[in-house]
Amino acid sequence: MSGAKILNVTGLNNSEAKWVALDKIEYQDPSGKKRVWEMCHRTSRKGDCDAVVIFTILSATKDKPKETLLVSQFRPPVGKLTFEFPAGLIDENETAEQAAVRELKEETGYHGVVREVTPIIFSDPGLTNANMKLVVMDVDRSLEINQNVVAVPDEGEFIDVFHIPVDKLYSFLIEKANTTHAVDARLLHFAFGLNVASKI
Amino acid sequence: MSGAKILNVTGLNNSEAKWVALDKIEYQDPSGKKRVWEMCHRTSRKGDCDAVVIFTILSATKDKPKETLLVSQFRPPVGKLTFEFPAGLIDENETAEQAAVRELKEETGYHGVVREVTPIIFSDPGLTNANMKLVVMDVDRSLEINQNVVAVPDEGEFIDVFHIPVDKLYSFLIEKANTTHAVDARLLHFAFGLNVASKI
Repeated sequence: MSGAKILNVTGLNNSEAKWVALDKIEYQDPSGKKRVWEMCHRTSRKGDCDAVVIFTILSATKDKPKETLLVSQFRPPVGKLTFEFPAGLIDENETAEQAAVRELKEETGYHGVVREVTPIIFSDPGLTNANMKLVVMDVDRSLEINQNVVAVPDEGEFIDVFHIPVDKLYSFLIEKANTTHAVDARLLHFAFGLNVASKI
Repeated sequence: MSGAKILNVTGLNNSEAKWVALDKIEYQDPSGKKRVWEMCHRTSRKGDCDAVVIFTILSATKDKPKETLLVSQFRPPVGKLTFEFPAGLIDENETAEQAAVRELKEETGYHGVVREVTPIIFSDPGLTNANMKLVVMDVDRSLEINQNVVAVPDEGEFIDVFHIPVDKLYSFLIEKANTTHAVDARLLHFAFGLNVASKI
């Protein structure tokens, strides 16, 4: 994956952009005063939710502890390899549950079962309306379908899959963020919550 | 806070925008093929990090459990009141620690002490280079400076502060996300991690 790199960056206007756009919002603040805010939105949204983000729990086996799955890929906006939860945009006429099962299979090869889906949550509400649901999935490693799995990424996707013991997630991510990788903030917040739960 | 509302939304080009901009990135993928990606960036970044996000731990008192602080404000990009951790952009020549102490005081009135700062993490690395550090702060409620605190928000900021028992954070946010509010994804990931820590 070390071959990926940024070649050139240029400004882009809405009329030339396919996936994103800027908006000027005129709004009334709580005191009644008229103000302006600038934002970015994804133009790809099909329903009321852009994407699913997947927290996977891989069952323990006789050789392996309970693990979760991370994906690593070169992300042009940050110019680096990232660590993120498996995730993807929801297709037209697809539920969040269906998108999660499909994306987990595509990105990691595993067949998972949905345990829980959160309401819609917002990536960075001061900057964008980009939103998602967090989906918790169980992967039973004793099943035939989950032996020797093979990912089936979309064209143009180059994704490495990592199996990380759940209790090592936070220390793994901090080490990577301090050295070589860009770590997704939602993933790190999750790992931080897991890690501090026993300490506060 | 119910008076805030969106009046009008129009497209915006980079030349008219002050805070955000779109970019077209030409990059080489891991196979050597040249591709294009579209992104949004904040034009306000002063150093290598845009912002701090603050997880506060308010000490227990004889009447109150250990609590954390949330802020709620109308966010034009999502057109709703949100729940978020206290947060803010880092000023020029300011460290993340200094920004966190300043922002917590401005947004909530409390004087906090920094316990821990994460490396830089990225909000939504498929969409933007927007980044932050998560800062953990302790607030000692027995101190004189933390009695009858008064927030000192910036001009144009209208922020309500909520004190939430740490062990109720997840259920509080899910109820709000299912009914009236837009919940920040980073905050919900944190609360989810806290909540599932004892269950996986």
